[in-house]
Amino acid sequence: MVGEEFLKILANRQFPLGTLRLLASARSAGRKIQFAGREIVVEALSEGSVEGCHLAFISATDEISKKYAPIAAKAGAVVIDDSGVWRMHPEVPLVIPEVNPDDVSKHNGILAIPNCSTTPVVMTLWPVHKRNPVKRIIASTYQSVSGTGRAASEELRDTTSNALAGKPIEPKIYKHRIAFNLIPEIGSVKDDGYTSEELKMANETRKIMHAPDIAIATTCVRVPVFVSHSASVFAEFTNPITPEEFRSYLKEQPGVMVEDDLPNGVYPRPFEAAGKDPVFAGRIRKDLSIPNGIAYWVVGDNLRKGAALNALQIAELMISRDLI
Amino acid sequence: MVGEEFLKILANRQFPLGTLRLLASARSAGRKIQFAGREIVVEALSEGSVEGCHLAFISATDEISKKYAPIAAKAGAVVIDDSGVWRMHPEVPLVIPEVNPDDVSKHNGILAIPNCSTTPVVMTLWPVHKRNPVKRIIASTYQSVSGTGRAASEELRDTTSNALAGKPIEPKIYKHRIAFNLIPEIGSVKDDGYTSEELKMANETRKIMHAPDIAIATTCVRVPVFVSHSASVFAEFTNPITPEEFRSYLKEQPGVMVEDDLPNGVYPRPFEAAGKDPVFAGRIRKDLSIPNGIAYWVVGDNLRKGAALNALQIAELMISRDLI
Repeated sequence: MVGEEFLKILANRQFPLGTLRLLASARSAGRKIQFAGREIVVEALSEGSVEGCHLAFISATDEISKKYAPIAAKAGAVVIDDSGVWRMHPEVPLVIPEVNPDDVSKHNGILAIPNCSTTPVVMTLWPVHKRNPVKRIIASTYQSVSGTGRAASEELRDTTSNALAGKPIEPKIYKHRIAFNLIPEIGSVKDDGYTSEELKMANETRKIMHAPDIAIATTCVRVPVFVSHSASVFAEFTNPITPEEFRSYLKEQPGVMVEDDLPNGVYPRPFEAAGKDPVFAGRIRKDLSIPNGIAYWVVGDNLRKGAALNALQIAELMISRDLI
Repeated sequence: MVGEEFLKILANRQFPLGTLRLLASARSAGRKIQFAGREIVVEALSEGSVEGCHLAFISATDEISKKYAPIAAKAGAVVIDDSGVWRMHPEVPLVIPEVNPDDVSKHNGILAIPNCSTTPVVMTLWPVHKRNPVKRIIASTYQSVSGTGRAASEELRDTTSNALAGKPIEPKIYKHRIAFNLIPEIGSVKDDGYTSEELKMANETRKIMHAPDIAIATTCVRVPVFVSHSASVFAEFTNPITPEEFRSYLKEQPGVMVEDDLPNGVYPRPFEAAGKDPVFAGRIRKDLSIPNGIAYWVVGDNLRKGAALNALQIAELMISRDLI
């Protein structure tokens, strides 16, 4: 799903594209994909197939990224990777171009994009953090099924349809029914009762913001929504801050749109954010439980800024700095 | 919907029921309702119709509760009210029988049950708070459409069906589409960017627990789920606490069930909690962002323990104490 979104975005941007090759599993090889009015035949990925690439975007399984990112980098490509395996590697820059663009300059051939639930939270905290450092972040997520992939989207569609028809539901992709339900487990099971998704949000946020001391706790929940991840965030800052200040800092931040007018029913929603580039923030107000706290709600398309768009923006940034 | 659930529960409990009368708007008068194998004809509510009642359960609009609760109390009934208008009144006990049973003794004829999003959070914090006082609560909710009422449940069903069929969607009950979407607005708009639902959770929690100093901030979100409200909670306590201690205190608490085995995919989910009496808690772990913090996930049927069951339990408690 990220690949498809990537091609849609690429076709609509001023990107200095030479040759575009699409690599996938042997099972998908031979498939024809429409791109910018022409047809591209999908090739089977192999160790030799990355030869000659200047840029390699990888959005596949962790196993594929682990194996092929170093192969592509060794063959001379700049690799921009969407998996979880390289993000926390000390020599791999983890980049949101609107937040830490300078990190692209020091790499060994592999750069990573953050997890799709991390990006919206970091993009909305960064413009404040620069002026008034974040001390503690509490986030509860509401994540769409497209974060799991196409089969999960089909499962949401099919099981919802069955639920409405009173037919039995047999989940295959998820451990439990997702139709009209919530699943508070995303990713793999890690130590201390946390999931990998919850720990990623914490670790990646600290790395991207170069702020190893931010205290972070998160709960990640899968919701019956097709596209866009949302989060309810409670952030504590070092110094006092008003909702008006928070809002004005966010309005200056490229890639963030403030939609915040509760009396008129204006706040971000995942269905409406899907297919759009910005990260949307609203419900900005004082966290009534601490002096320097702000509570807010953030929504972003997990396939776009949460994945494909961010990867492409990293490439554009590197090209503009003559790093590719 | 609460009334229907109330009748289901009443029919299955050992309740010393004499005559049962069902009062509703003139529009619903004459409707026949099945109860415990017999048929009861709904009567139109009027100022005279509450005469002779020992117990009056009210679950209607705020306006109906505001007008008829005092009339019924004056006519000699003990009123147990499900609306938002009496809960914070200083002479009205706000009761969860498993938490503050002794509060039923001092009343002027009206008692209130908490809002359906408050009850699960309070029931799970109370057994810990008794030993180790809660200092701060951060909660983000995932609330089902049945909290809005039957028309909202129909709207979720119909708009989801239309969405799957690719037909246009016109929300009537909600301001925005709820099918495969999230709406971060519940209740009316209050000061400082908060909704009434968010402020209720804070104020009611402090009143029920007799703990006016607990710091609380909440974000309330409507999700496309039919029944049961869920919440992601981060609680800070006065003294150190381990997840094992938290879990063991919860296991002792009547009305709470611990479902907590992440490696085996065991945690509460709203679809599975619907129609059940207990409040379910899981995903219990250390809040990694502070020393004395616990993060957890709680789910309860908003029509049962969140409303009808709690109301009936208050009546049972008062009967057992010869207060009715």
